[in-house]
Amino acid sequence: MRRIAMLGSGFIGRFYADSIEGQRSKDKIISIYARKEENAKKFAADYKCDHWTTNMEEAIAHPDVDVVCIALPNYVHADAVMLCCKHKKAVVTTKPLGRNGAEALQMMKAVEEAGIFNGYLEDLVYAPKFLKAYESVKNGALGRILWAKSRETHPGPHSDWFWNIELAGGGCILDLGCHCIEITRTFIGKDIRPVEVMCWADTQVKPIDAEDHAIGLIKYENGAIGQFEVSWAFRGGMDLRDEVMGTEGTIWINNFLRTGMDMFTTGKGADYVAEKAESNTGWLFPVGDEVNDLGYNHMFTEMFNCIENGTDPRETFYDGYVVNAIIDAAYKSAKTKLWEPVQLEVWRGKEGVTKQSTLVDYDVDHYLIKEEVTHYGAKKVVIKHKQTGKIVERIIE
Amino acid sequence: MRRIAMLGSGFIGRFYADSIEGQRSKDKIISIYARKEENAKKFAADYKCDHWTTNMEEAIAHPDVDVVCIALPNYVHADAVMLCCKHKKAVVTTKPLGRNGAEALQMMKAVEEAGIFNGYLEDLVYAPKFLKAYESVKNGALGRILWAKSRETHPGPHSDWFWNIELAGGGCILDLGCHCIEITRTFIGKDIRPVEVMCWADTQVKPIDAEDHAIGLIKYENGAIGQFEVSWAFRGGMDLRDEVMGTEGTIWINNFLRTGMDMFTTGKGADYVAEKAESNTGWLFPVGDEVNDLGYNHMFTEMFNCIENGTDPRETFYDGYVVNAIIDAAYKSAKTKLWEPVQLEVWRGKEGVTKQSTLVDYDVDHYLIKEEVTHYGAKKVVIKHKQTGKIVERIIE
Amino acid sequence: MRRIAMLGSGFIGRFYADSIEGQRSKDKIISIYARKEENAKKFAADYKCDHWTTNMEEAIAHPDVDVVCIALPNYVHADAVMLCCKHKKAVVTTKPLGRNGAEALQMMKAVEEAGIFNGYLEDLVYAPKFLKAYESVKNGALGRILWAKSRETHPGPHSDWFWNIELAGGGCILDLGCHCIEITRTFIGKDIRPVEVMCWADTQVKPIDAEDHAIGLIKYENGAIGQFEVSWAFRGGMDLRDEVMGTEGTIWINNFLRTGMDMFTTGKGADYVAEKAESNTGWLFPVGDEVNDLGYNHMFTEMFNCIENGTDPRETFYDGYVVNAIIDAAYKSAKTKLWEPVQLEVWRGKEGVTKQSTLVDYDVDHYLIKEEVTHYGAKKVVIKHKQTGKIVERIIE
Amino acid sequence: MRRIAMLGSGFIGRFYADSIEGQRSKDKIISIYARKEENAKKFAADYKCDHWTTNMEEAIAHPDVDVVCIALPNYVHADAVMLCCKHKKAVVTTKPLGRNGAEALQMMKAVEEAGIFNGYLEDLVYAPKFLKAYESVKNGALGRILWAKSRETHPGPHSDWFWNIELAGGGCILDLGCHCIEITRTFIGKDIRPVEVMCWADTQVKPIDAEDHAIGLIKYENGAIGQFEVSWAFRGGMDLRDEVMGTEGTIWINNFLRTGMDMFTTGKGADYVAEKAESNTGWLFPVGDEVNDLGYNHMFTEMFNCIENGTDPRETFYDGYVVNAIIDAAYKSAKTKLWEPVQLEVWRGKEGVTKQSTLVDYDVDHYLIKEEVTHYGAKKVVIKHKQTGKIVERIIE
Repeated sequence: MRRIAMLGSGFIGRFYADSIEGQRSKDKIISIYARKEENAKKFAADYKCDHWTTNMEEAIAHPDVDVVCIALPNYVHADAVMLCCKHKKAVVTTKPLGRNGAEALQMMKAVEEAGIFNGYLEDLVYAPKFLKAYESVKNGALGRILWAKSRETHPGPHSDWFWNIELAGGGCILDLGCHCIEITRTFIGKDIRPVEVMCWADTQVKPIDAEDHAIGLIKYENGAIGQFEVSWAFRGGMDLRDEVMGTEGTIWINNFLRTGMDMFTTGKGADYVAEKAESNTGWLFPVGDEVNDLGYNHMFTEMFNCIENGTDPRETFYDGYVVNAIIDAAYKSAKTKLWEPVQLEVWRGKEGVTKQSTLVDYDVDHYLIKEEVTHYGAKKVVIKHKQTGKIVERIIE
Repeated sequence: MRRIAMLGSGFIGRFYADSIEGQRSKDKIISIYARKEENAKKFAADYKCDHWTTNMEEAIAHPDVDVVCIALPNYVHADAVMLCCKHKKAVVTTKPLGRNGAEALQMMKAVEEAGIFNGYLEDLVYAPKFLKAYESVKNGALGRILWAKSRETHPGPHSDWFWNIELAGGGCILDLGCHCIEITRTFIGKDIRPVEVMCWADTQVKPIDAEDHAIGLIKYENGAIGQFEVSWAFRGGMDLRDEVMGTEGTIWINNFLRTGMDMFTTGKGADYVAEKAESNTGWLFPVGDEVNDLGYNHMFTEMFNCIENGTDPRETFYDGYVVNAIIDAAYKSAKTKLWEPVQLEVWRGKEGVTKQSTLVDYDVDHYLIKEEVTHYGAKKVVIKHKQTGKIVERIIE
Repeated sequence: MRRIAMLGSGFIGRFYADSIEGQRSKDKIISIYARKEENAKKFAADYKCDHWTTNMEEAIAHPDVDVVCIALPNYVHADAVMLCCKHKKAVVTTKPLGRNGAEALQMMKAVEEAGIFNGYLEDLVYAPKFLKAYESVKNGALGRILWAKSRETHPGPHSDWFWNIELAGGGCILDLGCHCIEITRTFIGKDIRPVEVMCWADTQVKPIDAEDHAIGLIKYENGAIGQFEVSWAFRGGMDLRDEVMGTEGTIWINNFLRTGMDMFTTGKGADYVAEKAESNTGWLFPVGDEVNDLGYNHMFTEMFNCIENGTDPRETFYDGYVVNAIIDAAYKSAKTKLWEPVQLEVWRGKEGVTKQSTLVDYDVDHYLIKEEVTHYGAKKVVIKHKQTGKIVERIIE
Repeated sequence: MRRIAMLGSGFIGRFYADSIEGQRSKDKIISIYARKEENAKKFAADYKCDHWTTNMEEAIAHPDVDVVCIALPNYVHADAVMLCCKHKKAVVTTKPLGRNGAEALQMMKAVEEAGIFNGYLEDLVYAPKFLKAYESVKNGALGRILWAKSRETHPGPHSDWFWNIELAGGGCILDLGCHCIEITRTFIGKDIRPVEVMCWADTQVKPIDAEDHAIGLIKYENGAIGQFEVSWAFRGGMDLRDEVMGTEGTIWINNFLRTGMDMFTTGKGADYVAEKAESNTGWLFPVGDEVNDLGYNHMFTEMFNCIENGTDPRETFYDGYVVNAIIDAAYKSAKTKLWEPVQLEVWRGKEGVTKQSTLVDYDVDHYLIKEEVTHYGAKKVVIKHKQTGKIVERIIE
C-alpha cells in the first residue's frame, strides 16, 4: 500500500486521484497540497484525506507519505521535485517534466543523485489500446517501423496558467506534443536516437503569445519518422489518434472521438446533465471509461508496483528529459525554419544505428519492387536489374 | 480484502481471476477447485493459490474462504450454490444462473433462505460503455425508451459441454441470450415486467441438438420491446453490439469488433503470435483492455464493495432468475411459434404499468405528428385534428 | 433516348428527376402531371419540361411520351398503371407497388396482359454498396446465406398522406419495410419462396392509426431468415443499414449515417445553410452523392437500358407483388400474433427447396463442430460421434 | 455528344473509359491510341471503338474526334498536348500535368496560345464527398480554414514506368501528392497564394531512386497550412483521407478504406473471385461505386458540359501548373532541408492577402481566450487584458 501526497487539486489532480483510489486499489492519498486553502479543503473532503495544507513542503515531508504525486502547473515542477529530493520521497510527476530540456535535465540529475524513485506520468503510453498496439509492434506484426504519428487537438486547456507562456513554458507543443512525442518515440524504439526536428508552429486563432497549432517531424537515427499534430484551436471535442506504418502492417488507434459509442439526443429529455464536450445535443461520442481508456489506471498500477518491487517504471524522468529535449528542438525549428538537431547531453540508448537495407532479391539478377495480382487475375511483378537498374514488369502466372 | 475460492479453472475462471487479481486489487484467490487435478494444479501455480482441490465442497468450506466464485458449466451451478448455502459463504455465479427458470428459482430461494450474499455475474451490464450509456438513459437523454436491442454472435464456444444440450441446458440463447436479455431489460427498466416473448430459433449450421442461431422479441408491460440476436454460426470474430431507441435519442454501442483500434498485418513480421480471432493476418480489430472493456473489473469491484458494505449488488440471483424465466419463454415460443407469456412466480418490480400517452398538443384542436425543415428551408408541420382525425400539412414559416 | 412523363412533383418525383436528368443522361422528362397546377408549373419550370398538366391521363397519353414514371401516393398507383395499360406506355412505379397484395396482383396482371414494360423502382437494390455486396454473395464469398437483415428508420415521412392509413395503405412497414424486404429477399435468393412471417408492430409515439415501429422475421423455404426493422420514431437522422450472415462470411452495409464523412460545426460560420437532417450543428454525417448512393442512378440506367434492349429489369411488378404479399402477411401477423403464411397466388421461383445439410465430416466416425486455435496456441477440435452423438474436445497439435 | 480520342489503354485509360461511357452518357470514345498494337486492339474491342492506332497523332487528328483524353505516362504528356494544339482539339489530361513546373508551364502556355479547351483531370476534387465538404466550407460551416490535410498512401503503382524517376519525373510526391495538394489548396482557397513548402521525403523501402514516402507542409499567404502525406510503402490497401480544420468546425473524409461497407470472408465459399486489394480473405472494405466515389463521373460530366457551354472547368492546365510548382518546391525542400518558396511565374489569384485578425472582444478591457462549461456545471471564461496582457479565469455563472 502506497501513502500518497498529492500536490495540486485541479483537473489533473482529481483525474489522478480517481484513478489511484478507483478499482479497490490498496493505495491512499493521505495529504493534499493546494495553493488555495479552499481548494485543499475541498479536495481533502472529496477524497477523505486526513491532511491538507497550503505549504507544499509540509505535504511532502509528512511522515506517513511515501510517494509524492506532482499535479501542478509546469513552472512549479522543479521546485516540487527538489523538495522530494531533500526529503527522499519517491516522486511521480505529471507531463511535461520541465518547461525545457535544461530544467528537465536538472530535475533528472537531482532525483538520480538523491537516489529516489522517479516516474514520469505519461499516461498515454499506458492507454490500453497503446499497450495492445505496442505489443503487436514489438512482436513484429508491422515489420520495421517507418513512421508513427500522434495527434492531439482540442479547443484549449481549462486553467489560465496554460495560456501564459512564462508559466507554462510554451503552448500546445509543450502541453500536447509531449504526449505525441513519447507515443511515437515508443513505437519507433526508445533506444533509437532522435536526431533532428522540423516544426511549423503558429498562433492562428487565440490572442496569446504561445502557439495554438503546430506540426512537427522528428527524424530518428534509423530513418524512421515521428510526427506530431497538436492544436488548441480544434473544434469538435478532443481528437486523440495515433497511426503507425511498418513494412508489414499498419495500426490506427482512436482514443476518444470514435471508440464504438455513439449517442444522439435532442436534449429534450428531462433532467439531462451536460457532457464535458463542445455540445450536449446532437450526435455525441462519449468514452466508456475515461480514467482507464486514457491509461491512468495502468500507469499508476505499474508505477506503484515498481516502487514496491524496486524496479524502474516504463517512464522515468530520463524519458521526460528526452521529450523535453525534442520539444526544445521543435521550438527552435519553428523559429529558425531549419531542421534542428536534438541536443541530448545524456543519451542512454543505442549509438550509431544505421538505416536497414530493404533490398529483396527476386532472382539472382533482380530486386523485387512489387508483386501484385492484377484486376484481370494475373500475377505480376515489377523488378529492377541489380546491375543496370532497369525496371520492368513481368507477368508470371 | 476478499479471500476467494474459485470453482472452475477454464476459460471464464481465468478471465475472472485476471480481473480479480489485476489492477492491484486487495482481493486474492486462495483456493481453486477443478474437476481434473492437473487443471487445478496449473491454475494454482499460475495464480499462486495456496490451496487446490478436486473436491468442490473442500474449496467452499475452506476456513479462509469468504467468497465463492462459480465459474463452472451450467449443469453444476445448482449443486455449487447449495454447498455455499450449507457453508454460509457469499456466492457469485457466472451466467446464466440456471439451465431454466425452475432451477434458477430454486437457487434464488436457497441463497435467500440461507441469508448469504448472492451476486449474478452478468459482466456486460458493468461494461464501461454500458454504464455510461445507462447513465444517459437514466438521466433522460433518450426520453422514453421504445426499443433496446443487443446482439452477441460469434463462431461458437470453446468447451465441449456447451454443445451438449443436456449439460448446457440449451444453445446460444442460453449461452449468449442471457447477456442480451439483461442488457436490454436494464435499458428498458428492471422494474418493468417482461410480459411475453416471441422467438425464432434454428440449428442452421452445426451438427448439434441445440439452436445455433436465434432472434427474440420481449414485450414489456409499458409497451417497450427488447430484442436479442444470438448465434454460434457468425463469421468474423465476436460481434457484440447494443442499440437503444428513445423518443428523444439513440445510442449505439460496439463492444468488440469496432472500438477504435484497427490493425493490418501481412503476417510476415518476425515472431508474431496469433490473436484469439478468426484470423491473424489482414485487417484485425483488437480490443484495448478486454477484461475492463467487457465489464469484469467494474463488476467484481461492485460485488466485493457490496459484500463489504452489506448492500445488494446491481445484479443478484433474482435478476438471474428473471433472465432464466424470459429464456424459458423464448424456448417455448421457438417451439409453439406463439408469443409465450413470461412465467414469473416471483416478481419484485412494478405492477400494472400502462403504456404512456404520447400525444403532443400542437394547438387546441390539433395534435402534432411531425415538425420539420423542408429542403427548401421552410418550416412545416404535419398535424392531426383531435375530433375529426384529419391529417394535414401546414407550412408555418 | 427516353421521353418521360413524370406523374407527381413531390419529394420523390424530384429525386427521380434529378437522377434521370443528371450525369448527362440522354433521357428527358417531357411532361409533368401534378394534382395542383402550381406544383406542375413549378416542376416544369425547374426541369424545363415543355408540357405540364393536372390531368393524369393527358400526361400519360402525350404522343411524345414513351415511358411513364409513377411518383404518386400509394393510393393512386393502381389508377395510374391502368391508364398506362390503356395507352400502352412503358411504366415504372415507385415503391410499394400496391397498398396490399391484391392491388399489386391486379396491377401486375394488367401490365402483363397489356404487354407493356413494367419496372418496380426499388432503388435500394441498386445502391452501389448493395450491388457490390450482392456480387460477393453470388460469387460465394459468404457461403450459404443464413440471415439477412435490413433496417430503415427515420423520424417520419414528409407528406401528410403517408400518415393516413387509408391513403397510404399502412404505416412504416409499407413505407420502409418494402425496401428492407426486397433487400433481404435478394440476398437470400429471389427464387427462394418466402414461407411465413412473424411481425411485431406498434404505434409507440405518433398520434396515428398506423404503426410507427415494427420488426418482422420472414422464413424462407431453404431455412434462411429475412429480418426487417422499420420505424418513423427514430431520432438522429435516417438509419439505413443492412447485414448479411453466411456460413463463410459477413457483410455490413451502412448507406447513410456513417459513410466516411464526418463534419462538426458550431453553426457560427457566416451564411451557413441547413442540411436536411435533425440538426445543423454539432457532429453531422452527410452523404456524398445521395442520388447515386441510394441507387437512383443505377436503377434508371438499368430500367432504360432494358426498355431499349427489350429485356426485363432486375425489378418488375412481379417483385413488387411478392413484396406486397409478404407485407400482407406481416400485417396479419402483427394482429394475430401468429406466424402467418405468405399467400402467393403467383409464384415463379423454385418449388420444394429443402434445407441444405451442413454436416462436415471430421473423420469416418465424427462430424466436426468447431476447430479453433486456443489462446495458448494449440489447435483444438470439438467433434461429435456420428452414432452415439457424444461431443468431445480433442487437442490435435 | 462528345467524340473522344483516348490516348493510352492502361489502368487509368480504362477507368476513364468506364466513367465516360457509363451511366448512359451521350459521349463515345471513337479512337484509341496505344503504343502496342495488341493493347490498342484489345481496348477498341472492349469499348467498341471504330478506330485504333499506334500512331498518337493519327488518333488526335482523326476528323471525327473533338476531345482528346490523355491517359499516358507523365513523360509523354507534353508531346501529346503539343499535338492537340497543332490540331486544335480540346484536351483533358491526367494528373500530374507535367513532370515539373517548367514542363507544365510550357503546356499551359501552348494550350492557351492555341485557344483550345484544356481540362486538368484531378478527379479527387470532383469526388462526391469532396464536393459536399467543399460546399460546406464555402458556406462558412467551418469558419476560417486553418489547416487542410490530405493523405494518399498505398502499396505502390501498377506500371513499371512509375518506378523509373526519369520517366515519371519523381516518386510518390508527384504520383500521389498532386492529388493531395489540389485537394488541400481547394479547401484553403484556390485564389490564395501558396508561399513556401517544407518537405521530408525518403526512400525507406523500395529499391528505387525516387522517394517512396513523403510528408509536406505548404504555407499559404493567409497563414493557412496545407499538408500532404504520401507513400508507396503503405500496407493495408489504399488509404485516402482528407481532414479540414476551421475556426468553427472540422471535416473528416474517408474515401476508401472505411466507407460504410465491411465484409468478412473465410475465402472458402465456392467460385470466389479476388478483389483488387492486399488480400481477399478476412475483413475487407470494398468501395460501393469506385468510378463515382473517386470523382470520375462528376469530373467528366463537368468537363464535357463546359466544352459544350464554352466555359472553363473547375480544373484547368493552370491548376495543374500551380500544383507542379508546389511539387517542385517540395522536391527542392526535401534536398535543401529548407522551407522553399513556391516559384510561380504566372499567378492569377489574389495578391497581398494578410493573416486575418482573430481577436474576439470579451468586454471593453479584455479579449476572450476560451469559454467553457466546467465538469461541475459552471460557465467559465479565460480572458486576456488588452493593455497588460494578463490572463485570468473567471467563473461567470
